[in-house]
Amino acid sequence: MITRCAYNTLHQFVSTVFFTMNCSEADALQAADILLRADLRGIHSHGLVRLKEYVKLYSNGRINAQADIRIIHQTPGTALMDGDKGFGMVVAPRAMQLAIDKARQAGTGWVAVRNTNHFGIAGHYAMMALEHDMIGIAMTNANPLVAPTRSKHPLLGTNPVATAIPAMEQPPFVADFATAPIARGKLDQMAKRSQVAPEGVLQDATGQPTQQADILCHHGAIKTLGGDTLQGGHKGYCMSAIVDILTAVLPGANFGPLVIPTLAYLPDEQNNRTDNGIGHFFGALRVDAFRPANDFKRYMDHWITTMRGSEPIHPEEPILIPGDPEREKETLYRTEGIPVEDYILEELNAIAKQLNIPSVDFRGQN
Amino acid sequence: MITRCAYNTLHQFVSTVFFTMNCSEADALQAADILLRADLRGIHSHGLVRLKEYVKLYSNGRINAQADIRIIHQTPGTALMDGDKGFGMVVAPRAMQLAIDKARQAGTGWVAVRNTNHFGIAGHYAMMALEHDMIGIAMTNANPLVAPTRSKHPLLGTNPVATAIPAMEQPPFVADFATAPIARGKLDQMAKRSQVAPEGVLQDATGQPTQQADILCHHGAIKTLGGDTLQGGHKGYCMSAIVDILTAVLPGANFGPLVIPTLAYLPDEQNNRTDNGIGHFFGALRVDAFRPANDFKRYMDHWITTMRGSEPIHPEEPILIPGDPEREKETLYRTEGIPVEDYILEELNAIAKQLNIPSVDFRGQN
Repeated sequence: MITRCAYNTLHQFVSTVFFTMNCSEADALQAADILLRADLRGIHSHGLVRLKEYVKLYSNGRINAQADIRIIHQTPGTALMDGDKGFGMVVAPRAMQLAIDKARQAGTGWVAVRNTNHFGIAGHYAMMALEHDMIGIAMTNANPLVAPTRSKHPLLGTNPVATAIPAMEQPPFVADFATAPIARGKLDQMAKRSQVAPEGVLQDATGQPTQQADILCHHGAIKTLGGDTLQGGHKGYCMSAIVDILTAVLPGANFGPLVIPTLAYLPDEQNNRTDNGIGHFFGALRVDAFRPANDFKRYMDHWITTMRGSEPIHPEEPILIPGDPEREKETLYRTEGIPVEDYILEELNAIAKQLNIPSVDFRGQN
Repeated sequence: MITRCAYNTLHQFVSTVFFTMNCSEADALQAADILLRADLRGIHSHGLVRLKEYVKLYSNGRINAQADIRIIHQTPGTALMDGDKGFGMVVAPRAMQLAIDKARQAGTGWVAVRNTNHFGIAGHYAMMALEHDMIGIAMTNANPLVAPTRSKHPLLGTNPVATAIPAMEQPPFVADFATAPIARGKLDQMAKRSQVAPEGVLQDATGQPTQQADILCHHGAIKTLGGDTLQGGHKGYCMSAIVDILTAVLPGANFGPLVIPTLAYLPDEQNNRTDNGIGHFFGALRVDAFRPANDFKRYMDHWITTMRGSEPIHPEEPILIPGDPEREKETLYRTEGIPVEDYILEELNAIAKQLNIPSVDFRGQN
């Protein structure tokens, strides 16, 4: 069962949760903005469903809600940040803001972050650049779930990259995707619903193809984008690898298989490892550091309308611009409420109990 | 039949061809370096096989060998360049060098280029950054051959991206790949050899799946990396789109379907279009703009040995690091000669005749 829950009710609850976990009021409100942005945009795998994980990490002492987020080194156009094990949704917006500030001075700004945690949807940060007529880029590494080409074992995260590009009359281009063919959250949902996973995206513990949606719980792995080498799967491996290197090797965070899992079914050998958290990488490119912003944005409109206007294979399935489906959902859900599955409402109530905060009748508020 | 041809013999011939097409001596030598780098690295689809196309473009007046390559706008960390319709292999190295010079000052350097032409392998330019302890990035747009998700027609190029990352004791990480599942050059070779293309990478003129290798000559298209949406093909669409936007919309070059084809089988409507050439985008990130270069490079060694040391599905197929196969070929071919197919040697001889330069006995030189 799914319930439509009012955005404001959910926002108040989520911000109370972060506040109760010792975040400042400003940080708690911002973290609630970002977490719910995922559900608003229909990326439910990165929204409310994760709150339980954050509470668990906090309860286990793996998150520092009063993190001293510091710039370790910087140049006019770059910075290395240490997140001091803060919530990703507190660390990441500061890092992206710094990239934007640097771009204002130097033309582009690039910030690598270590010692941080899961930051929700990458798209939120990339989109922060749009109002400044900048192109925004955001990426992160994550739990090792993806097997490099030829590998039996998962060594890389689903490592998402988001790119937001402003236009003039048209809505912006916002690509926000895991560099793996399928998100872990989607597999969880399929397993919960006893569905079979798509062909060509998973391998079992011996490296053989499988469609068993819960194979990650049984030492399986997600294949790289493209799948087998004949279909270009080695290119997907390159993409996941590049994200891992920029987000983790560059700032000195835990990379690939060194990432300390937040998932119960992954082996946790944290006692053997240095913990520098996961890593993020943010970029902002001022459009007018290349040419007048309006010239670019008008031409971007031309690009968008050209793609949108091209002939579809099936007339009922028009060509989409990255960001179209998420934008439509965001508009709808802000007014009509966010659809939330019942088991998640139960999790929210369990969180309220655990943190000793008032539970909410989410069903009655809309 | 394949002949091993000495690198020096080929280099002298190719540089003579560029010199005869009115390039300066320095530009001709450099263009020969870059063109042959493709064959040296085993990326034959981007090397000698393209020389005929360059000569044809030059003969048709579409290339300006005495191009006035200009910086149109710049900031400390960025520049917009106009290639004045020069050879890509003359324009691109200057733009990448400018990105490197800017990174030295500003931490990172980013150069977008319009009015340029095919530049050979992207990897060559990305690798220029390595000796400066920088991460190098190079991308270009290209002939429209790839159909966006849901589209019946090819609107995007195979749009390659190369990323070169330095290490300490280990050889560098060099990912150089088309954002499409298969290169156009490979399909040409398959068609020439009457081979069937891999499953899931092509669609016919109606958008239906096909394995006919010459389908591009019959109004077909390459699918995006990932293939169908269930396998993440919309992510491949995002990647191709981002490269098209950064390389063409940002500098004001011809984007996607506006690219004036260099392929005889694509419809050429150049009379109806503004010709701002294709576009490139280059980046250089100084590692020590984030943290000490040696710390990073040692950690990069750790990343490389971790991936290389992981357990393969098939023991005889160890995990590769991007750049491994190309580096091995480059070492071998530099000493033992480059393998060249007979039909290409015939093309080279035809070029010699056309340009009235001495023909070479490539077979006898090794």
